[in-house]
Amino acid sequence: MANRIGVILSGCGVYDGSEIHEAVITLLAIDRAGAEAVCMAPDIPQMHVVNHLTGEPAESESRNVLVESARIARGNIKDLATVQVGDIDALILPGGFGAAKNLCDFAVKGPDCSVNAEVARLITAMHAAGKPIAAVCIAPAVLSKILGNAKTSPQLTIGTDEGTAEALHKMGTEHIQCPVEDFVVDHNNKLVSSPAYMLAGSISEAAEGIEKTVQALIGLIE
Amino acid sequence: MANRIGVILSGCGVYDGSEIHEAVITLLAIDRAGAEAVCMAPDIPQMHVVNHLTGEPAESESRNVLVESARIARGNIKDLATVQVGDIDALILPGGFGAAKNLCDFAVKGPDCSVNAEVARLITAMHAAGKPIAAVCIAPAVLSKILGNAKTSPQLTIGTDEGTAEALHKMGTEHIQCPVEDFVVDHNNKLVSSPAYMLAGSISEAAEGIEKTVQALIGLIE
Repeated sequence: MANRIGVILSGCGVYDGSEIHEAVITLLAIDRAGAEAVCMAPDIPQMHVVNHLTGEPAESESRNVLVESARIARGNIKDLATVQVGDIDALILPGGFGAAKNLCDFAVKGPDCSVNAEVARLITAMHAAGKPIAAVCIAPAVLSKILGNAKTSPQLTIGTDEGTAEALHKMGTEHIQCPVEDFVVDHNNKLVSSPAYMLAGSISEAAEGIEKTVQALIGLIE
Repeated sequence: MANRIGVILSGCGVYDGSEIHEAVITLLAIDRAGAEAVCMAPDIPQMHVVNHLTGEPAESESRNVLVESARIARGNIKDLATVQVGDIDALILPGGFGAAKNLCDFAVKGPDCSVNAEVARLITAMHAAGKPIAAVCIAPAVLSKILGNAKTSPQLTIGTDEGTAEALHKMGTEHIQCPVEDFVVDHNNKLVSSPAYMLAGSISEAAEGIEKTVQALIGLIE
């Protein structure tokens, strides 16, 4: 049976949801590796809606994270609350502000953030079961909040941004500097991370790190 | 100077806008070929908004094609009405229902459809200037309506669907059957097309045809 890779989406658009390039490159890399992507998202309202043409919040609009994530998944998506650890062999979180605004509130509260309960449940269960987890771009902030108290401190990267790295450190993570085309593996905790658009100047740069991340994630499946 | 490839987007989501996988794979293929993507979309309301989780129209919502397309382009997008033929060396239209609902109304009216005036202006000018144009998935319907009266009938593919092929034929196109991983080149009219999600059962299948299409499109630039 093909390896089943859970993909946690957080909306549809870099400023208020999943970074679309990162999400699609992730899905393509999973499929090309012969694995099966299992898309999921929490059934909750987005923190807000951002007009991606102007960069300004659209005050009068509200959208649902699961419904918007379904755009990236072509409708083939599950409510994250219904997904159990036995349903998947590995998990990956693409980036985009949605990871820091909808999956948790790191974008607002920094290291004092809280993580959506269902997201925290699934990540905690995956880690406890010894199944590998990857996080791209800003999504390592989510893992840091949940796994910062693990027996061995998680090793993760968000690239080179000192302020963000310090915030991860405050949540218990050992931050590893990493260039855009590379990735970091924490073998103790079975974590993989890559900076992608935290550093990428082009879609090709983001793709190189994400493709390597997906390969490494699949390689950690037992 | 890098070749500049115009990418006409039609919203953000397969059922009411651009097919997101096709659009991102197109942008990645352009960047990896060393060319520059110039994203654009018409500044018009979408025909409608579809809830991609249920597949049903969201009757109370309205969205703008340019604003939603900006999600795929990470905000780096132009109003199509401001783009001139001299600004780009080639043009490509990813698919998704947006091509048939927002760029034209083929989804509703079939061969009797009309094309958005600015979309028609740019495609007509590109063709007259001898610059190459590609269309993916259902987007060859747009080219068929505009170029069906060209001196030499355009040769295009939407894969193998007989009803759609017949509709293109009624608009003056010679439809060429084509498998998902392949593409069709019309050397007389400098057109390239590939079925992508008209036939694809997976994102990898769509990617293979689109990557070849982008290569062929760039190869036709003089």
